Amino acid sequence: MPMQFDPPSGTRDFLAAELEARERAFAVIRSVFSRYGFEPLQTPAFERLDVLLGKYGEEGDKLIFKILRRGEHEASGEADLALRYDMTVPLARVAAAYGSQLPTPYKRYAIGPVWRADRPGRGRFREFVQCDLDTIGTRSILADAEVICAVHDALTELGLGDFRFLLNSRHVLAGLLEAFDVPAELGPGVLITLDKLDKLAPPEVTAELAGRGLAPALAGELVAAMTAPDAAERIRTALKPSEEGAAGLDEVDEVLRLLGTSLPAGRVQFTPRLVRGLSYYTGPIWEVVADGVPGSISSGGRYDHLIEQLGGPDVPGTGGSLGIERILLLLPDGGRAGQLRRLDVAVTVIGEEFTAAAFGFAATARQAGLRSSVYLGGSRKLGRQLKWASDQGARWALIYGRSEQEAGTVTVRDMDSGDQSAVLLGELPAFLAGLGGPGAS
Amino acid sequence: MPMQFDPPSGTRDFLAAELEARERAFAVIRSVFSRYGFEPLQTPAFERLDVLLGKYGEEGDKLIFKILRRGEHEASGEADLALRYDMTVPLARVAAAYGSQLPTPYKRYAIGPVWRADRPGRGRFREFVQCDLDTIGTRSILADAEVICAVHDALTELGLGDFRFLLNSRHVLAGLLEAFDVPAELGPGVLITLDKLDKLAPPEVTAELAGRGLAPALAGELVAAMTAPDAAERIRTALKPSEEGAAGLDEVDEVLRLLGTSLPAGRVQFTPRLVRGLSYYTGPIWEVVADGVPGSISSGGRYDHLIEQLGGPDVPGTGGSLGIERILLLLPDGGRAGQLRRLDVAVTVIGEEFTAAAFGFAATARQAGLRSSVYLGGSRKLGRQLKWASDQGARWALIYGRSEQEAGTVTVRDMDSGDQSAVLLGELPAFLAGLGGPGAS
Repeated sequence: MPMQFDPPSGTRDFLAAELEARERAFAVIRSVFSRYGFEPLQTPAFERLDVLLGKYGEEGDKLIFKILRRGEHEASGEADLALRYDMTVPLARVAAAYGSQLPTPYKRYAIGPVWRADRPGRGRFREFVQCDLDTIGTRSILADAEVICAVHDALTELGLGDFRFLLNSRHVLAGLLEAFDVPAELGPGVLITLDKLDKLAPPEVTAELAGRGLAPALAGELVAAMTAPDAAERIRTALKPSEEGAAGLDEVDEVLRLLGTSLPAGRVQFTPRLVRGLSYYTGPIWEVVADGVPGSISSGGRYDHLIEQLGGPDVPGTGGSLGIERILLLLPDGGRAGQLRRLDVAVTVIGEEFTAAAFGFAATARQAGLRSSVYLGGSRKLGRQLKWASDQGARWALIYGRSEQEAGTVTVRDMDSGDQSAVLLGELPAFLAGLGGPGAS
Repeated sequence: MPMQFDPPSGTRDFLAAELEARERAFAVIRSVFSRYGFEPLQTPAFERLDVLLGKYGEEGDKLIFKILRRGEHEASGEADLALRYDMTVPLARVAAAYGSQLPTPYKRYAIGPVWRADRPGRGRFREFVQCDLDTIGTRSILADAEVICAVHDALTELGLGDFRFLLNSRHVLAGLLEAFDVPAELGPGVLITLDKLDKLAPPEVTAELAGRGLAPALAGELVAAMTAPDAAERIRTALKPSEEGAAGLDEVDEVLRLLGTSLPAGRVQFTPRLVRGLSYYTGPIWEVVADGVPGSISSGGRYDHLIEQLGGPDVPGTGGSLGIERILLLLPDGGRAGQLRRLDVAVTVIGEEFTAAAFGFAATARQAGLRSSVYLGGSRKLGRQLKWASDQGARWALIYGRSEQEAGTVTVRDMDSGDQSAVLLGELPAFLAGLGGPGAS
């Protein structure tokens, strides 16, 4: 049986250029989040199986990668550990484990891989990075607005321009069901169908609502209100008689007011049709859409009972997640730098008697803050070595052979222009220091 | 059954202070390695089981975390994937998978977690970070010296001062067995015992050698030569008649000569008793010891057949590994910063009518490059909020209430001195910009 050399299905090897682009993006996000006072958290790749099971619904449970017991128990075929499925259950566990050691509220971000045994597909992986930020331990709506602001800044600093936040509240949705007299038992199903208004045509949604048992006239009225050009205003009017609806509107308006102090106008839009599928949200909900990209690139909301449901303490929370794998695809060149410059100074090795000198020159260049290495291949031909220097993207090459030794100089070759100049050995450190650090041109 | 909230046995949660210290150390190492032209590589957390099995010996195989097959196959209790056990097998797989896409030689580093189902103990974890750098595809001894140099710089920049490299060569060891007429069949066992000279007293090693079947007189002679104050010189003399021994000495001397151009004198010591347990080394071998620390904090060597043995192409290689978990323990405060400053500017929230202004002030501070957040708790008492500001390590607090609103000012409180001053609203951006970035005092 031939051995396969590709990584396991649904996973990826990241070679230098792509990995560095990803790390740069993560660094931008970390920097933005820490500017808001969010602190990083890192939990193990795996958790006890009982910590994860039953937290993601029946379908989610099936996607958990389970780890076999070790030693004599391995033969049982039983699992006792499982790979992290998201960042939220570990947050709940950490909140339970370290409660009083954590600040109140606890504002944390987590950037790292999670694993799901999903069917791999285009843009869908079994190992992918999640990027979450959450504030737990406060009911303040300032915390909701702060999360949205931080996500906004992160997306902006990553270089995304054309994106906007869709904002709604669970209370608006509850009020909507009340205002339109939707029978209570149909409520959840109606919301699930309304959530499809961003993908399906209004008549299709109306038909699906009717299929769920909603009176056709009511279904049509609801969909018309939600899809009208002035939907936000019509829903505002419709909600006023509902106490919960009015409270939801107040919540939305307060978030809009707070964000108005720092976000560009129009960046956040009250969007009554926004439902977000996840049942655990309890207050403001939001997602970020970008032109030409189906679905959302970030989303979040308030979840005041989730941490307790996941096995943590009874604390309110609000948070969001960046769809970082999708966002990376939107960045120019996937975030890659244009030209690869792996070295600033490439040092050629002309013959055995010059190797120690060459090795020392590379060290001198590094002491000057430059990236530098000697040629490690077997060829002693200068042309071959200059080809290597060029492949490494080196800005300069140092050449030191018999003639240089006799003259007491090093030849410095500008790899862009091909110009060469002789530098006295004793002046090399100062010369290299004058060339400037990585990326200097 | 009460739920456990600690992380799984042998794993750790990293809260902010410790995580940030670790990340800072990793950033230093990345920076040093990239200065040598090493490029990063990241492979998935898990590999196909057959890629890992049989690569680490019988004992190693038992320590591999295996992942159950998914879906309908889960009930079989069989595993088809396994968590990464080290960074070398993935390197071999990547070399096979991407051969011609990789530079030649391929100089890569990898920093990331590996997982071993070892019995957890003090300083021994089931999830821990490995930090490897390797150059594959060249037999040049410059590559060996370069790895040692890069490790030296990384340890130095991490802040370690008292460490030294012990250097030897497998050829020296082979020559030694030849020069001392050790019967061929006893060779491997004799080397394993000699490797204990850093832990056991010479008579104990002599006794163990005799127990392996070596003539007692010969065992005594060998141990005496290896432990004499002038061991290096005595071994040099003894090796001369052996062709392989002499070649090994040349190898050691060439590495010493190259390192002499850039490392402090005496930092690398020819150490004939150094064996390194791993059988795959084929040339220079080395480890780093630090005063007061048992064992080594870094080690490596040349392995010209390992990549092929691990399922990769037939390429020579040399590399090293930093024992980063041990090294982190050696750093002052485990590398933690002294005082935690999570925020530069803490913004108090005095009443509902001032929340939007407060939220905007925090955004203004962040635009000035400062870390800033509004108070998210439920208290409206200033003292309570200043306590929060202090807990966050904030350097300044902003206060904006009724009197400030009437005066058109913001009160800026120096959290160290307690001094307060009034800043005109319109001048706040410039004032904050003048306070300087994170860490400014």
